[in-house]
Parts: sequence; C-alpha cells; structure tokens
Amino acid sequence: MGHKFEEKTISSQPIYQGRVISLQVDEVTLPNQKTSKRELVKHPGAVAIIAITEDHKMILVEQYRKALERELIEIPAGKIEKGEDPKATALRELEEETGYTARELHYVQSFATSPGFADEIIHIYVTQGLKKLETPRDMDEDEFVTLHECTLAEAETWIKEQKIFDAKTAFAIQWWRLHRF
Amino acid sequence: MGHKFEEKTISSQPIYQGRVISLQVDEVTLPNQKTSKRELVKHPGAVAIIAITEDHKMILVEQYRKALERELIEIPAGKIEKGEDPKATALRELEEETGYTARELHYVQSFATSPGFADEIIHIYVTQGLKKLETPRDMDEDEFVTLHECTLAEAETWIKEQKIFDAKTAFAIQWWRLHRF
Repeated sequence: MGHKFEEKTISSQPIYQGRVISLQVDEVTLPNQKTSKRELVKHPGAVAIIAITEDHKMILVEQYRKALERELIEIPAGKIEKGEDPKATALRELEEETGYTARELHYVQSFATSPGFADEIIHIYVTQGLKKLETPRDMDEDEFVTLHECTLAEAETWIKEQKIFDAKTAFAIQWWRLHRF
Repeated sequence: MGHKFEEKTISSQPIYQGRVISLQVDEVTLPNQKTSKRELVKHPGAVAIIAITEDHKMILVEQYRKALERELIEIPAGKIEKGEDPKATALRELEEETGYTARELHYVQSFATSPGFADEIIHIYVTQGLKKLETPRDMDEDEFVTLHECTLAEAETWIKEQKIFDAKTAFAIQWWRLHRF
C-alpha cells in the first residue's frame, strides 16, 4: 500500500454547496508530475441497516429516487447528522423509517459507494432483537415510504426484476444469504 | 410498485458540467404537493469485472482515489464511453487495467451506487477463461495502478483492514464466496 501514487492538491475550486452534497474541482499533481483535475462530491456519510425479524423476514423501504426517476426498494438508511455517532444514526433511522427498534445493532462493514468521484461512506449494521415500537416516532413529513417485509427468495426475485437496484441493498441481500443460518 | 410517490420536476438548474460528472438542482413537487430541491449528480455509468484466474485468485487493482485521499484495492472497473455496449467496456477495461483477457464475460448484476444523489449505475460481469494477453494493451498514461492477485482469504483480510473499501468490491468478494464452488 503506502502512498506511491498520491495525487497532491495544487488548488481546490468550490463549485456548489448544497443541503446534502457539495461539489469542488481540485487540480492535482499526478505521480508523473503532470497535472489533472478531479471532480469531487462531498457527502456527510450514511448508515444502512440489515433488519431481520424473528420470523426471518427483512424490513425494506420503497421510496422514489429522483436521480433514477423511479421507486427503489432498499434497506433502511439515512445520512449521518453532524457530530452524530453512526450507530445512533442507524437506530434513529431504523425507528423513523420502519417503526421497528432493535435490542442491539452490530457493525457489519463500511464502504465508499463511488470512490471515483465521491467521498460518501456507508456504514452497515445488522439488528438483533428486532421488535415493533409501541409508539412509533413521527416520520419526517416529507418522506414518502412504503414498508415491505420479505423472505430471502422474494428479495432475490426483486433483484432480478431490478426493484432492488442499489449497491447497499445488493450487498445486504448477499450478506443475508451468507449469514442466514 | 407504481409511481405513487413520484416527484414531478418543476424546474432544473444546471450547476456544473465536468469531464466525468455533471451537477444539477431540480425543484420538485412532492406527493403532498409541497416543493423540495434535489441535488443530482449525473454520471455516464460504469462496469466492473469479477476476474478470477484458473488457480482461484482474483485480479484486483490498487489505485489512488482523490475523493478519499488514499489508495484503495478494487475490482477492475471503468466508465462506459458514449454509445459503448457495457460488455465491450468491461472487456476493454479488463485488458487495459490488468493485461488479462477473458474467453467470455457473463453478466452478474447492475446497481446504482448512490441513488440518493447520483444516477451512476455499475454493471458487474464475471470472467470465464481468464488468460494473460500476449501483447498487453497500452495503459492510459495517466493511470497509475498496482495489480494484485489474491485468494478469498486475503481479500477478506483486506476488507477487515479497509484496504478493500468500496461498494462494488465488497459486493464482488461476497459474490465470490457465494459462487466459488
């Protein structure tokens, strides 16, 4: 490993500062001393939760994704608020999005979703002791979500039909298949 | 499914048009008739290749990722050129990045990497009949890549060490574990 191919920043041009993401273009020096530009999206990071019920069903949320102009079925997820511990984010998002809570959350893995242009990192957790909240938290009034509970076979059908179509959920379904016993 | 939660575009503001990505901000109508903004990154799409040798090793490439300010070890991948068939992209990127070619490429799965803010879709292929090119293609002179061949156990160690740290490679290593026999 090491940093033999490090790209040193010469200058950084802020392009856009939004609510969720920001964009900057960095000019960098390559290992061969040439220069190049890097278009970089900054994102606060996110968590996602593999939530499996006592009767071996996974809780999924269906929501409209403007970037793809259609609805996707995904594992519950959400952005990390500034200063928030990722595990706390995971419990909050699980409760808000699904109306379930968990006795424990176990860390599974983290990954960068698009390292070629974005710094977004998703931290994946799995629930233990999943149960319905007696008094569900109010959902964000601008979130429109349909809940699903599915078996592994149903999830794999939804992958074939591309209703499940995002990286974190593709990862989660494989994880479930590998760890279901 | 259906489109009950569709967000209708009221207006679309172009922010930046770059070499790899572009950024626009759309104003949308939500299902409750309120309006909101969506920050949307456009990307041409990519392919990635699960390349496994006859002696059961996976070909991985290590490269510096400016967005994360460090080197990552990933499966070979690349952007789809305009009008290019994804399978042709996959063969080209495999040959250019690794010096290997494949008798056949089989489609595995596609997924959106960051559906909350980007339209990037990655198409995953797996090689059959992987072999070294006798006369490797010239690499892009601005690509700096170290090749690795690793066993499944080594890959899983690199995941724990976060040297493997991106969504497509996390997916690929799970896929390998599920399909290795």
